[in-house]
Amino acid sequence: MSEQPQNPAQPPAAAPAEGGPAAPSKSEIKKRAKEAEKAKKAAERAAREEEERRKREAAASVDNASQNYGKLPLHQSQERLGRQYLQFDKISDADVGKQVVFRARMHNTRAQGAKMVFLQFRQQTETLQGVLVQSKDTDEHQVSKQMLKYAITVPAESIVIVEGVIKAAEVKSCTIQTYEVSVQKLYTAVEAQTLPFSMADASRDEADFQKAELDENLQYSRVNLTTRLDHRVMDLRTPANQAIFRMQSGICQLFRDHLNGLGFVEIHTPKLQGAATESGASVFKVKYFEGEAFLAQSPQLAKQMCIAADMERVYEIAPVFRAENSNTHRHMTEFMGLDLEMAITEHYHEALEVIDSMLKAIFHGLKGKFGKEIEVIRRQFPSEDFVVLDKTPIIEFKEAVKMLQEAGATESDGSALQDNADLSTENEKFLGKLVKEKYNGADYYIVDKFPSDFRPFYSMPTPGNPATVNSYDIYMRGEEILSGAQRIHDPEFLTQRIKELGMNPDELKDYIDAFRLGCPPHAGGGIGLERVLMFYLGLGNIRRASLFPRDPKRLKP
Amino acid sequence: MSEQPQNPAQPPAAAPAEGGPAAPSKSEIKKRAKEAEKAKKAAERAAREEEERRKREAAASVDNASQNYGKLPLHQSQERLGRQYLQFDKISDADVGKQVVFRARMHNTRAQGAKMVFLQFRQQTETLQGVLVQSKDTDEHQVSKQMLKYAITVPAESIVIVEGVIKAAEVKSCTIQTYEVSVQKLYTAVEAQTLPFSMADASRDEADFQKAELDENLQYSRVNLTTRLDHRVMDLRTPANQAIFRMQSGICQLFRDHLNGLGFVEIHTPKLQGAATESGASVFKVKYFEGEAFLAQSPQLAKQMCIAADMERVYEIAPVFRAENSNTHRHMTEFMGLDLEMAITEHYHEALEVIDSMLKAIFHGLKGKFGKEIEVIRRQFPSEDFVVLDKTPIIEFKEAVKMLQEAGATESDGSALQDNADLSTENEKFLGKLVKEKYNGADYYIVDKFPSDFRPFYSMPTPGNPATVNSYDIYMRGEEILSGAQRIHDPEFLTQRIKELGMNPDELKDYIDAFRLGCPPHAGGGIGLERVLMFYLGLGNIRRASLFPRDPKRLKP
Repeated sequence: MSEQPQNPAQPPAAAPAEGGPAAPSKSEIKKRAKEAEKAKKAAERAAREEEERRKREAAASVDNASQNYGKLPLHQSQERLGRQYLQFDKISDADVGKQVVFRARMHNTRAQGAKMVFLQFRQQTETLQGVLVQSKDTDEHQVSKQMLKYAITVPAESIVIVEGVIKAAEVKSCTIQTYEVSVQKLYTAVEAQTLPFSMADASRDEADFQKAELDENLQYSRVNLTTRLDHRVMDLRTPANQAIFRMQSGICQLFRDHLNGLGFVEIHTPKLQGAATESGASVFKVKYFEGEAFLAQSPQLAKQMCIAADMERVYEIAPVFRAENSNTHRHMTEFMGLDLEMAITEHYHEALEVIDSMLKAIFHGLKGKFGKEIEVIRRQFPSEDFVVLDKTPIIEFKEAVKMLQEAGATESDGSALQDNADLSTENEKFLGKLVKEKYNGADYYIVDKFPSDFRPFYSMPTPGNPATVNSYDIYMRGEEILSGAQRIHDPEFLTQRIKELGMNPDELKDYIDAFRLGCPPHAGGGIGLERVLMFYLGLGNIRRASLFPRDPKRLKP
Repeated sequence: MSEQPQNPAQPPAAAPAEGGPAAPSKSEIKKRAKEAEKAKKAAERAAREEEERRKREAAASVDNASQNYGKLPLHQSQERLGRQYLQFDKISDADVGKQVVFRARMHNTRAQGAKMVFLQFRQQTETLQGVLVQSKDTDEHQVSKQMLKYAITVPAESIVIVEGVIKAAEVKSCTIQTYEVSVQKLYTAVEAQTLPFSMADASRDEADFQKAELDENLQYSRVNLTTRLDHRVMDLRTPANQAIFRMQSGICQLFRDHLNGLGFVEIHTPKLQGAATESGASVFKVKYFEGEAFLAQSPQLAKQMCIAADMERVYEIAPVFRAENSNTHRHMTEFMGLDLEMAITEHYHEALEVIDSMLKAIFHGLKGKFGKEIEVIRRQFPSEDFVVLDKTPIIEFKEAVKMLQEAGATESDGSALQDNADLSTENEKFLGKLVKEKYNGADYYIVDKFPSDFRPFYSMPTPGNPATVNSYDIYMRGEEILSGAQRIHDPEFLTQRIKELGMNPDELKDYIDAFRLGCPPHAGGGIGLERVLMFYLGLGNIRRASLFPRDPKRLKP
């Protein structure tokens, strides 16, 4: 520093006043000299003190840790060091004492006194405690006061690269409870901007809200579903959502594994159709070059064509589009259909048994492979264990109606429930309760042989009783997840049925013609993926079971 | 039989003529008596013969086999006998001499003399010879003349239920060459109507056509692709098509198995979008209630949002829609996308290596698991083995251009190939040949670091060289199957790039906003399923690799 410090404590020099009083007395001179001496010493001391203060300040402003933290340049794959990045869910005793590097979200920060900061790092469903302690100059891995200050100001949800040493610890506030990381370096790789809601609020357990109801000092915000869906990228980071979508992935895998083992072949059929396949009312229209197309409401005809083409057993996992203006907890305009269709030899129950075994494989697989995920989800969405019996109850429709009638069920207008009436959603749920009581708590059951009036025209009539069809629905906790049937494979009989139902065979020509080259008897069904997930976990709203749900009012994100 | 047979051979009774000549002489009487005796004997013999003939005829018109053949009533799941139905591909020596029942297509019939009919039954890719021999009365399983006649007249492609006994045999005309079935019962379960073309013509091997070119007695019809696609249900029954779609199913399974093993999660993202994601020109518009929606041209934004939502590694198999009026051998308006996206730590080559290992797993898996299918397909579509090197050639774009320039490649107008020019389809194919020559016959290779001009705005620029991007294409036999890149994960930089490219950031607001909450660096790619299948097998037209292809002119079946 070239500039000399000015001493503000130095008093003004005592100058002799011109034309002032006569020369002072000896005692006065002595007194003044003493005072001057005193002042000089004071000045010297002050200068000394200031110099020391300056030195201290200068020493403090030198940041020996400046290379140990800060914002990294944009990641453009500049270099490849080949370092192993730590995964929190893989930490074990073998890592204690080891130098590690990892990438994580900055989940939370909290200063502890002036020389310590507690950090929470997050990777998917796991959180790990980090400890940042201001170090002495001699420390090889220097953590400075400035670094502490930096750590506190990294915006929540930013992505950080951390280096440090794993230590054994007891931690209550993180999911990793027996280790922590002593942080040596902390870089921000990607900075998050202003958050729409906090991760804490979005991840809050149901138990927290219940506690808060009894404690006026606890004020928790619930983030409502619409806000969550508007900011789905943020919402999907919650532990419950991370777990929900791993399970969604799991259901598809279990479905395929089971059916592959039974000789099924996966198919992919077009979603763009030249004609509306089932019901013209709920089909989306697409502008197709100079003409128009329709979005498939199901792969019904396509999978039946595969059976007519001798593929024997087929399944498809694909989007299904329904232009129904239904704004309920269980309808979406686009959902994932898990469809299957198979040739049968003697009886459509061959297909029903395949479907039953497949659904059981899914339920048992979820329980067996996703125990940890189910636990995480239940904290936020409490639910009972899903009960599956070894022998699935198969209840004929007329028997189901009888159970409802005997239990006093009525139509929604209060009138008596008719024998051949379609079941309302309420009565379906009521039936679910009755089945659960009657069949050892079963949450999963089949209703068979529906009246033909409520089923598609292509459902095969029951032999000897044309008022019912070889058609079934499958329920979870009183709500339908699958609809299926034996289909009519004979083009002449199909034409006859279409006429009987007052429809026009000409409009269904393509459908009927698909069977003219000979199609084996067959049956199948279609499952709604999100419904299985939602009812299994008791999520209460189908949108929670879809990454980016679509309904009549939502097309984003 | 109550009615007495009339003997047409009986001569008229010789009556004495009234007013005729005088009484005959003794010798004349003797002679006449002799003649009468002779006539009587002749008449008796004739009557005896006629009686025998009648008996024979009556016996023949009684059909003791009438219950052993005929058309079955419509299959409505009338009863369940629990019989085991034979699968042709499971027949072994243990079945010889055994009574079996099976269902199959009537593939072909041929009478051999008056008392024998050869039948060919088909199950998917397998054919089995059936022999129907007229039996004697004493045979327990009677096969009558009428039954032989019935067998000959069952329409081709009808579905039959057959009972009989498996016998060891030498058969050249069927795929099952060491067994045949001695047919005892033959029922038609489903009758096929008039066929658009014969299975023989549709299944004809390429070798047959080559033979026919040298033999004027052989006249084979080729069934063209349009006719096949118009009658796809029939076309898909050919052995080649049965095999092609088993392999299509196999590719998806290999893709998933490999990525599941690397910690990927399967996702399902919506195909209905509120805004066109990439390029407005080639997007299909959908009428969405009172407004409009767009069909996803790729899951690009959705899978990137999953990365921003900390899902780390995701893949999706789903339809992709392109409203491009391209009528080529390798374009469809709807195809299956095999997409993946992953967070990277240090370098985008981490993703490229995952993609490379995944594609190799597919190629090796196809060769290992589908040898029989490949053989069946090659009979109809001859192709060379697909060559995959242990170390996949990775060629930088500028190096690829240099190879082309040195080999004398030009632009399609004959002008010199520029260093930073986009590669035409012809030059891509030419490059494929050059790579195959240079790299030990490799049919599979990667081109890396493309010029930024030909890549989407979200491609991450190469550090130190903004003219190229961290972006790659993957080729099979000189044709592109995958396009991928490191993506820009920083919203500010993304905005800057969009402006630099002369686009409007306001129109891409939703896309940019997805990264405001912090997104890890990531890379990925998208594969066209049908392209992989088509190029691997050398099918020559992408429509052959799609069950029910869609192009600008085809929306059916």
